[in-house]
Amino acid sequence: METVKIIDVTPRDGLQDASGYVPVSEKIALIEGLLKAGVRSVEVTAFVRPDWIPLLADADPLVDQLRHLDGEWIALVPNERGLKRAISAGIPAVTLVASASESHNKSNLNRSRVDTLAALARVTELAHQAGMQVKGAISTSFSCPFEGEIPTKDVLMVAEAYLRMGVDAIGIADTMGTANPAAVKERVKELNTVRGKVPLSLHLHDRFGWGLANVAMAYEYGVREYEVALAGLGGCPYAPGAAGNLDTEKLVEFFIAQKIFIPIDLNLLAATRVRLLSVLSRKLAAPVMDEN
Amino acid sequence: METVKIIDVTPRDGLQDASGYVPVSEKIALIEGLLKAGVRSVEVTAFVRPDWIPLLADADPLVDQLRHLDGEWIALVPNERGLKRAISAGIPAVTLVASASESHNKSNLNRSRVDTLAALARVTELAHQAGMQVKGAISTSFSCPFEGEIPTKDVLMVAEAYLRMGVDAIGIADTMGTANPAAVKERVKELNTVRGKVPLSLHLHDRFGWGLANVAMAYEYGVREYEVALAGLGGCPYAPGAAGNLDTEKLVEFFIAQKIFIPIDLNLLAATRVRLLSVLSRKLAAPVMDEN
Repeated sequence: METVKIIDVTPRDGLQDASGYVPVSEKIALIEGLLKAGVRSVEVTAFVRPDWIPLLADADPLVDQLRHLDGEWIALVPNERGLKRAISAGIPAVTLVASASESHNKSNLNRSRVDTLAALARVTELAHQAGMQVKGAISTSFSCPFEGEIPTKDVLMVAEAYLRMGVDAIGIADTMGTANPAAVKERVKELNTVRGKVPLSLHLHDRFGWGLANVAMAYEYGVREYEVALAGLGGCPYAPGAAGNLDTEKLVEFFIAQKIFIPIDLNLLAATRVRLLSVLSRKLAAPVMDEN
Repeated sequence: METVKIIDVTPRDGLQDASGYVPVSEKIALIEGLLKAGVRSVEVTAFVRPDWIPLLADADPLVDQLRHLDGEWIALVPNERGLKRAISAGIPAVTLVASASESHNKSNLNRSRVDTLAALARVTELAHQAGMQVKGAISTSFSCPFEGEIPTKDVLMVAEAYLRMGVDAIGIADTMGTANPAAVKERVKELNTVRGKVPLSLHLHDRFGWGLANVAMAYEYGVREYEVALAGLGGCPYAPGAAGNLDTEKLVEFFIAQKIFIPIDLNLLAATRVRLLSVLSRKLAAPVMDEN
């Protein structure tokens, strides 16, 4: 029976630029809610500079409190420093990030793609030594707020660098939410020629209501991993005008209707979403934390 | 260069069950607006019993006033009586209707599928004698309000009956708006095995926001004709709970983004939609007309 892997990124991408702070206890409730609903893979946080993304400054205490829960927790790490925090925190999987767009890479990570990828090769090596799974994510795989449309060859260049490092998965991200099915098809087909058995994952933002059309096309060409967020929350703080993530419930409903097996309970997902939105509606300020 | 045919069905499907009557002069303005925007194919009305669909009771005067306009006008006709009115009115193309679902066919047309198809064979013959183009549309090609999911073999059975009559095009209609990409793929692939060079057209209602995903999949399997309505208006009066049509502007925008050539001006379409919605907002009552 066909199935797909749903990776919920609400606690990280959904909350990194949210309108209010979600306390650690409520982030744990969110992650527990996702797990109970059947979502086993969750990107729970990012180990980034707390002064850059204050809403994720609680990454260390958060991950510490997840130890008793049996899920596949993932954290985003931008560099070696972040990886070391992730290793200390004991998280089993990390997502690395580089942009297909040179301008976005510089804006997001303060250096060139080549320098970023060189540093990420070392990060991958260290992560594998620590027994972690590594996904290489490619931001702005479709368009960039500064450069406009991004050619597939730039996506392929970053993917090939990741594959040379030996990452365990490749992710293409539609950071701006401008992807369309023809563009998805082109990128997925090209990546299929180089990725061998390395899984390809798709991270969509849903600006024009084309998110599910993009998923349909990606699925047709073999993509079996999707990153989504509850209530379509999220957006990149370094991509002005970016739209929210593709909605977790909408994606699950869409696949179930197509008789693709997804052992996720839509009612429990909805309850988890409602609780989270009620916390966000309080518009709490983020606590100030030291970078440790 | 790839292109697709956009058939706007606003004046017929969009208005047959609308919240207010649109006077003939405004229907002409609507059709002129569509034509000016670049939409050459328009389903302008249905020749049905005026007491059944009062909002389309103006079919004869409407078509009469279209004579000076250079578009590909289409009318829906349910039977021989409707066809004769269409011939008198001088319209060049007709769409016939039968349901894949036996229950919906009986509810919509008051007889069995087999009886309907037998009568439509004669209608097709007469239409061809009058020099008209004939499309055979298949309602409830995905699900039915009474029977639930409709198997592809029932769609195929109706399509094969139409092909034996010699129709010039086949249309599959997602009357309820429950189609999903997997179901679209299955039906289109099956129909591709029997239709030869007869074009296949897709008529979608957009209940769950899956309309464009369905289009993406249909396009992937060779469908190059789509029926849509401005503002997503419309719905079948004999399919309780049916959703509105797929939105014309959204479809055009979706194809243009994919670099598929569509010579349609989105600004002119928007202006046409705004004018129509302003008329509908007045909630006019339909005039009482004799069935002539």
